[in-house]
Amino acid sequence: MNKTPNFREIRYNEKRDKILKNAARLFAKSGYENVSMEKIAAKLKLNKATLYYYFKSKDEIFFMIQMQAIEQANDALGKVLDSNLGPKEKLLEAIKSHVRIVTRDYITGTFRQRELILPRKLMIKVIAARNRFEENFKKIVLEGVEQGIFQEDNWKLAVMSILGALNAIPRWYSPRGKLSPENIGETISAFVIKGISID
Amino acid sequence: MNKTPNFREIRYNEKRDKILKNAARLFAKSGYENVSMEKIAAKLKLNKATLYYYFKSKDEIFFMIQMQAIEQANDALGKVLDSNLGPKEKLLEAIKSHVRIVTRDYITGTFRQRELILPRKLMIKVIAARNRFEENFKKIVLEGVEQGIFQEDNWKLAVMSILGALNAIPRWYSPRGKLSPENIGETISAFVIKGISID
Repeated sequence: MNKTPNFREIRYNEKRDKILKNAARLFAKSGYENVSMEKIAAKLKLNKATLYYYFKSKDEIFFMIQMQAIEQANDALGKVLDSNLGPKEKLLEAIKSHVRIVTRDYITGTFRQRELILPRKLMIKVIAARNRFEENFKKIVLEGVEQGIFQEDNWKLAVMSILGALNAIPRWYSPRGKLSPENIGETISAFVIKGISID
Repeated sequence: MNKTPNFREIRYNEKRDKILKNAARLFAKSGYENVSMEKIAAKLKLNKATLYYYFKSKDEIFFMIQMQAIEQANDALGKVLDSNLGPKEKLLEAIKSHVRIVTRDYITGTFRQRELILPRKLMIKVIAARNRFEENFKKIVLEGVEQGIFQEDNWKLAVMSILGALNAIPRWYSPRGKLSPENIGETISAFVIKGISID
């Protein structure tokens, strides 16, 4: 059996991805409530039936965008966690890669919204994926705590504060601002690492 | 002309306030979309007509809750800003008072939701009030920058990160957790002040 995706599958996946990105931009621009399946189809010059062939509802589209973004963040974080870097460097890389993801235009728009608008069944999956991210982020800081590099007291509160700061970026970030995602990641890391380090 | 509110006005205001708090708790528990004016009236043992006498829509209730919370935060911040404290102490007090507000049960619920669900006209007012808060918070940090106590480079990004961390608290805070709002405020302040101070 051949597990390599065939041409048809690749096209199908590319199409789905294109729909997700364009829908995300529409949600960002007009607000989730104000975007219908019709509008998504129109933006992509698809007829509605074709759109429904790929996604059975607007909720499913929004859910997939959120999941894709969180999975990207989880993958990036997993690589950092498995690397041979020291705790400070790991935290720097983790923050930088997360900033890179949350500042992508189509992701920014989605993260301005909340998973709370999803039906409960889907919302729970988003929250679970987000919790995995949070757990991995905690592991990075905990390594530093165990090595006596980061402060032990209330280190979990430090992690929640860092994640709060990072996840707020889509609310104020502008690609026309003077700071690049790289600058933002490095600057926040510098504040954070100084703030939680022992010394 | 007597500007002191009379008994009738006081009762009216108390009643409005009671409606807001109870509605906020319902929104927090069941999600904004799933709470109707009927449910709010039922919780308060009011008939629907009485509820409509106080608020003309669910949007107006949600809007008032958000505005009340932001105005409380603005008042508290204004007092800190006008005080004679030094920049580090001002920042500590500003953070502590904000944590105290965002951890109040009925406010926590509201801040888990977003102003994005409001009609545009109301949303703009919420954002304007929030911007005033942000501007005042920036003034506190800027005082420290000007006095050579806080780092000048990217101080605005530091402020946005602090606010991101603080505004994320309603997403994870539990009154049954081991940290009190006071502990949370002091701990976050300690991380932040260490992170942004020169030395």
